[in-house]
Amino acid sequence: MFNFNLLHKDVKTESRAGILTVNGVSVETPVFMPVATQGAVRGLTIDNLNQCQAKILLANTYHLNIYPGSSLVKKHNGIGKFMGWDYLTLTDSGGFQVFSLPNKKITDDGVEFRYEINGEKVFLTPQSSIAIQEELGADIIMCFDECVEYPAEKNYVKKAVERTLNWARVCKDSHSKKDQFLFGIVQGGVYEDLRKYCADKIVDIGFDGYAIGGVSVGEGHDLLKKVVDDTAKYLPDDKPRYLMGVGLPEDIIEAVERGVDMFDCVIPTRFGRSGTLFTKKGKVRITNKDYRRDMYPIDTSCDCFVCKKFTRAYIHHLFRVNEVLGATLCSIHNLRFYTSMMSNMRDSILNDRFKDFKKDFYDNYNPKTNNETT
Amino acid sequence: MFNFNLLHKDVKTESRAGILTVNGVSVETPVFMPVATQGAVRGLTIDNLNQCQAKILLANTYHLNIYPGSSLVKKHNGIGKFMGWDYLTLTDSGGFQVFSLPNKKITDDGVEFRYEINGEKVFLTPQSSIAIQEELGADIIMCFDECVEYPAEKNYVKKAVERTLNWARVCKDSHSKKDQFLFGIVQGGVYEDLRKYCADKIVDIGFDGYAIGGVSVGEGHDLLKKVVDDTAKYLPDDKPRYLMGVGLPEDIIEAVERGVDMFDCVIPTRFGRSGTLFTKKGKVRITNKDYRRDMYPIDTSCDCFVCKKFTRAYIHHLFRVNEVLGATLCSIHNLRFYTSMMSNMRDSILNDRFKDFKKDFYDNYNPKTNNETT
Repeated sequence: MFNFNLLHKDVKTESRAGILTVNGVSVETPVFMPVATQGAVRGLTIDNLNQCQAKILLANTYHLNIYPGSSLVKKHNGIGKFMGWDYLTLTDSGGFQVFSLPNKKITDDGVEFRYEINGEKVFLTPQSSIAIQEELGADIIMCFDECVEYPAEKNYVKKAVERTLNWARVCKDSHSKKDQFLFGIVQGGVYEDLRKYCADKIVDIGFDGYAIGGVSVGEGHDLLKKVVDDTAKYLPDDKPRYLMGVGLPEDIIEAVERGVDMFDCVIPTRFGRSGTLFTKKGKVRITNKDYRRDMYPIDTSCDCFVCKKFTRAYIHHLFRVNEVLGATLCSIHNLRFYTSMMSNMRDSILNDRFKDFKKDFYDNYNPKTNNETT
Repeated sequence: MFNFNLLHKDVKTESRAGILTVNGVSVETPVFMPVATQGAVRGLTIDNLNQCQAKILLANTYHLNIYPGSSLVKKHNGIGKFMGWDYLTLTDSGGFQVFSLPNKKITDDGVEFRYEINGEKVFLTPQSSIAIQEELGADIIMCFDECVEYPAEKNYVKKAVERTLNWARVCKDSHSKKDQFLFGIVQGGVYEDLRKYCADKIVDIGFDGYAIGGVSVGEGHDLLKKVVDDTAKYLPDDKPRYLMGVGLPEDIIEAVERGVDMFDCVIPTRFGRSGTLFTKKGKVRITNKDYRRDMYPIDTSCDCFVCKKFTRAYIHHLFRVNEVLGATLCSIHNLRFYTSMMSNMRDSILNDRFKDFKKDFYDNYNPKTNNETT
């Protein structure tokens, strides 16, 4: 079963607070989904994810279809069971990875490419993407779409939109599992008219939720805001909206303000593994020598167990001696920074104070901050 | 405060069950201590260690004195607080690492060497080892001793025994912190008369506990048993006995049978990181292709959360895609294998059935087993 309950819209912005309930598990929105690319959020146990208060994970069809293969995941009754995860899962279609590959061959039926890791030749189609995602068994699955790089000629983007629409119809027709819910994806690059066109048509086809795709491809913060502006307004109020692969805290805040409900991104875990930490004041590089004897927690205002238990000096030490626990602890802190930011936004929306949240956030947070070098 | 309560000796063997209480924390013996070399058990959070039911950790003076340095650990009120660990800690003296170095210069006062990682020249003495260990602040600390390689000429071993005894007196005199408890170490190589001589003298000096040192230096399983036989009988019943750096399950079982109470070793975590798992039936290499589609847990009789949650196929997959979570999960399982083995031994001792435990263990466990290649 799938239900999206839009509890409240902020009076001064487009931001929304809701509850997404899928197969008996409820998730408060706006929500951030950590990325478990190959069936694990790198270096984190399920308990760690629970400590981060994550409730829904994204896994990658492209990667899982290589190793361990979708049939093995099916044998485990789906990706959630495979990785020991009790809450919700979402798989992407594989499209984003495939369209990032060199030497792919795109036709109206699908995309031919070779897996980078083993050279195997594959022809991925909307039908096969759905078939694989049905074997992977996530609660939410995504249409196979054509994700266009940035910048791209409008003529090409238009062609990709038509393919995306055709493939969306095929995906909907191919999809049969009743306990999986299919989201449509709006493409259209940075072109307002194409975004509107694609959104209208995708909504006509009708899906359980709608994603804004074709972002996080190098368009930058300002164009990202424009794309969300140009797309969200054409999506129905009563379905969840998912901005794929975004992003930095400032990107997410702007998108929530514009009415997006769901996000995924590798940033908190990837940055964490290299020792870049998100704090209320901005990003810090814990490997910087300033922290060698620093007795404070990473972020004095954070409630994660890393901030409760450890000094910056300890975390700095772990990186200095190349101890992998440092990467784990920083990933946990960063994920909690994200989930906490989401729930603070949600509270502000429910109180019609999203603008106050945003002002307060930026009054403290410096996006270019501190000793950050990432 | 320090108390060792010897609850029971098995009627048919020398094996002992007790309770070691230090600074208000009680630990059941025989006990296995995971190794937190540089202030972390590699890849494991404190919660993971609690899941493994560990109660006392060993940390290495040699490594901690390089990074982060003992003064920073002191600033944190000791190694336990530094690493967020609520139970007991023990530091070694640095001797084992130093005597493994090339180009060291041993005198009657101490050892001159260079730190391998940064080339810094150091002169480590019994006084300085104790001073460093007092800053590191572990509950139990060790005398600085001369650990001799195997094989070694008896004349040299005798000289090392005399140094070890002189240094033990210096260590005892140098030690002043009332909340840290000092163990003496018996050396003597594989020579029964030297072991007896050293044990008698060390006991005369008088310590809170006694360690059997100079093992795990290549002497092998049978000589290890002989050394424990030749030493344990000269140690007082009412103090804990610690066999340093040992070992494989079969080594530990033999040593418990001979009256040893405490153990530390990197084997469970090091083997875990490379995908070698301990099970009731013996060691298995989870990276072996046999496990690619294996739906069983690592060990069907194990109560660890890894065995409760995951299939061998999932763990195999994590190693195949080079996901560090695989190393973490296997370390957790292996540590739980060890702590569970210790508590099973303890139960058998309390019931005068250690021999039954041992027979049962070996009836199932093949030390050379399966697809093991480590």
